[in-house]
Amino acid sequence: MTVELVNSMGGDDSIIRAMLVSTQGAEALEAQATEGRINFLMKNRHGTPFEHGAMTFFIEAPIFVFREFHRHRVGWSYNEVSGRYRQLDPTFYVPHSDRPLVQEGKPGAYEFVAGTGEQHYRTTSRLCRSYRAAYEEYEAMLEDGIAKEVARACLPVGTYTAMFATCNPRSLMHFLGLRTKHDLAKFPSYPQYEIAEVARGMEEYFATLFPLTYKSYCLNGRVAP
Amino acid sequence: MTVELVNSMGGDDSIIRAMLVSTQGAEALEAQATEGRINFLMKNRHGTPFEHGAMTFFIEAPIFVFREFHRHRVGWSYNEVSGRYRQLDPTFYVPHSDRPLVQEGKPGAYEFVAGTGEQHYRTTSRLCRSYRAAYEEYEAMLEDGIAKEVARACLPVGTYTAMFATCNPRSLMHFLGLRTKHDLAKFPSYPQYEIAEVARGMEEYFATLFPLTYKSYCLNGRVAP
Amino acid sequence: MTVELVNSMGGDDSIIRAMLVSTQGAEALEAQATEGRINFLMKNRHGTPFEHGAMTFFIEAPIFVFREFHRHRVGWSYNEVSGRYRQLDPTFYVPHSDRPLVQEGKPGAYEFVAGTGEQHYRTTSRLCRSYRAAYEEYEAMLEDGIAKEVARACLPVGTYTAMFATCNPRSLMHFLGLRTKHDLAKFPSYPQYEIAEVARGMEEYFATLFPLTYKSYCLNGRVAP
Amino acid sequence: MTVELVNSMGGDDSIIRAMLVSTQGAEALEAQATEGRINFLMKNRHGTPFEHGAMTFFIEAPIFVFREFHRHRVGWSYNEVSGRYRQLDPTFYVPHSDRPLVQEGKPGAYEFVAGTGEQHYRTTSRLCRSYRAAYEEYEAMLEDGIAKEVARACLPVGTYTAMFATCNPRSLMHFLGLRTKHDLAKFPSYPQYEIAEVARGMEEYFATLFPLTYKSYCLNGRVAP
Repeated sequence: MTVELVNSMGGDDSIIRAMLVSTQGAEALEAQATEGRINFLMKNRHGTPFEHGAMTFFIEAPIFVFREFHRHRVGWSYNEVSGRYRQLDPTFYVPHSDRPLVQEGKPGAYEFVAGTGEQHYRTTSRLCRSYRAAYEEYEAMLEDGIAKEVARACLPVGTYTAMFATCNPRSLMHFLGLRTKHDLAKFPSYPQYEIAEVARGMEEYFATLFPLTYKSYCLNGRVAP
Repeated sequence: MTVELVNSMGGDDSIIRAMLVSTQGAEALEAQATEGRINFLMKNRHGTPFEHGAMTFFIEAPIFVFREFHRHRVGWSYNEVSGRYRQLDPTFYVPHSDRPLVQEGKPGAYEFVAGTGEQHYRTTSRLCRSYRAAYEEYEAMLEDGIAKEVARACLPVGTYTAMFATCNPRSLMHFLGLRTKHDLAKFPSYPQYEIAEVARGMEEYFATLFPLTYKSYCLNGRVAP
Repeated sequence: MTVELVNSMGGDDSIIRAMLVSTQGAEALEAQATEGRINFLMKNRHGTPFEHGAMTFFIEAPIFVFREFHRHRVGWSYNEVSGRYRQLDPTFYVPHSDRPLVQEGKPGAYEFVAGTGEQHYRTTSRLCRSYRAAYEEYEAMLEDGIAKEVARACLPVGTYTAMFATCNPRSLMHFLGLRTKHDLAKFPSYPQYEIAEVARGMEEYFATLFPLTYKSYCLNGRVAP
Repeated sequence: MTVELVNSMGGDDSIIRAMLVSTQGAEALEAQATEGRINFLMKNRHGTPFEHGAMTFFIEAPIFVFREFHRHRVGWSYNEVSGRYRQLDPTFYVPHSDRPLVQEGKPGAYEFVAGTGEQHYRTTSRLCRSYRAAYEEYEAMLEDGIAKEVARACLPVGTYTAMFATCNPRSLMHFLGLRTKHDLAKFPSYPQYEIAEVARGMEEYFATLFPLTYKSYCLNGRVAP
């Protein structure tokens, strides 16, 4: 999976300037971020100042990850590879050896455990065999003159795809709160392992671009304001 | 594919009342819709009055249809079957004999032509073979104790899924403008055949619930106001 | 101030059906709400099922209340009396005798205390004198042939206006969390007295239409899921 | 009125890269904007690529302008001076001598004509007299210890206020389509003179930051894609 920062706007100062316009008017244009001010916003859940920044990411991940991703509607813009207009590449998701494979417990609060080496081996084999078979049928249909948008129906949700995703600090914090599992989180989340990996990639960029905001977010229970 | 209306709020009158509050205040509560008033809004692209209604649909369609559907973010709410929490059923998309299979032209303006009987036969066979193989691997992984969210990676985007989708007349008209192909459309759209089928199902309910709005929408080029 | 329910869609059952589609598919269409299920959603902050309902309100309140109201963007639709198209009525806001008039403390955490009888008397007199003078100039300009949209510039933000507002249970809970002050609230809010009055009016209808959701919302700290 | 660009992200290239990811995947990261490509998007109303940019403006204008501004909900973020937390300055809107004062025709399609010199003189006098009286009462209440949020009820909607507003090229084009009057517009708009002035200020920055997009927007009837 790939997460690359393509573009960004603003930093902690942008947030504090947007905050201070409420009490200082035009003077806010020169204000600087401080830990105290950022903390005040985060703690009191004043969310709107955190919307005056922007980040564009280029992300490569399997379709099943993007399916969850695109349910985030507010403060997010997407443009993705189209299986209608482009032949999809034969690149597919196979779990790393450290991806826990077995789930225990009940819906809403699953726990995952590692699985045996045999389970890993069998799973990898089954996925690869299935992927290969599907892609062969896909190619055969394309060679037969069938439209890409029809032929793709057999491609698995493990197929890799790519997109540009643009968000703001507030919408990103909301995403991170739901799509990462973290000891500091006030509300527990149970994100799928793979989207959590993408989320962590975005989180690193966020921590660099908006350091005070990021710190305050973590110390305040990772709840988006 | 299934499209069922589950619930709805309002009708043409709701739209006109929301419109007339701007000039009549509380008197607008008793107002009635007329063709002229609805046309005035549509023609002049006053969109907000068309937001004071609601429709909830239950929809069953393949994953590749929902992938396009969920890109509609504003004025839409979704809850869908989860492949993390439920074993997906072995129900898959196979094109009808009247589904055109061959695309001609270039991206952005494809034309579709029928394809031969042999192409249909081969496509159907390939899809079914691929679906069956994928589902067998899926079941084998589940029996091996692998988590549903991992095993599903091999399931094709042709797998059927289901959701509740709630929208308002304005967001629905926007959806229909992009996801149907229609002679009256001022801006040509090239929706995929399958999502257009779902859209037409929703369009029928819409035409019944908001008859004046629907008529005016069509006569004004099927552009959402 | 007036808050009237004009229209609504759905109830606790709608929410639970949208929730259960994720694990039950089409069977969810027949499901019933229970306290346990609603609580599960609320506690775990699964917000989307709460979007499959709708409420339209007719609200009359001063401009300064609507100014705060219209900052709620997501899940809200508005149509309001227009000062460009209609002569505004000479109806203005005057605080009741139980409206605390004096603020103590600092921004973000003001406390309000009652104020003396004299302060109330003087405030009421000043507001009324000012309102009357402004409206006389407004009328004089209109009689002089000046456009309503120009003449209104002198009208005070205490002038009453009216609107239709449509929302869903999730967006309403978010609004209530910020615009009411409540002992059960996990995060303290400091809403202005007047918008809190409007909010309480909406809250009563909400409690009747979605009783289990409302109860669970209160017991879970009045944080929108 | 003041319109200042505070911050921005992206340019025509960002839009084209987001567009081309659909057919080129990762190669799109190096693509360049051309007039033809931008025109293709605009003409075919492919809107989402135009969301991968951002602009933050600092704007000073009367309350009645912001009242219209804040009705733009999607793709807009606002933080404004608060009359609850800050004493508002005695700065008020008075129409320039070239502001047409008299409206003819009917709602939805007003025409404005200049008005006589006497009308201008009388209007200016009436507004100023009214503003002064209101502000004196406001100050008197504040000196009497009354909370700012109560005292402000008498302040006119012609009072100046200030905000940060962040948007993207798509949401800005939608705003410009409704809030400017322009010969090239396919759909006629009748914005109030004052918000059109603010809009033109934003339009100039937009034309500089996204020159190909801007040109194409105008040549395609100033309809947001």
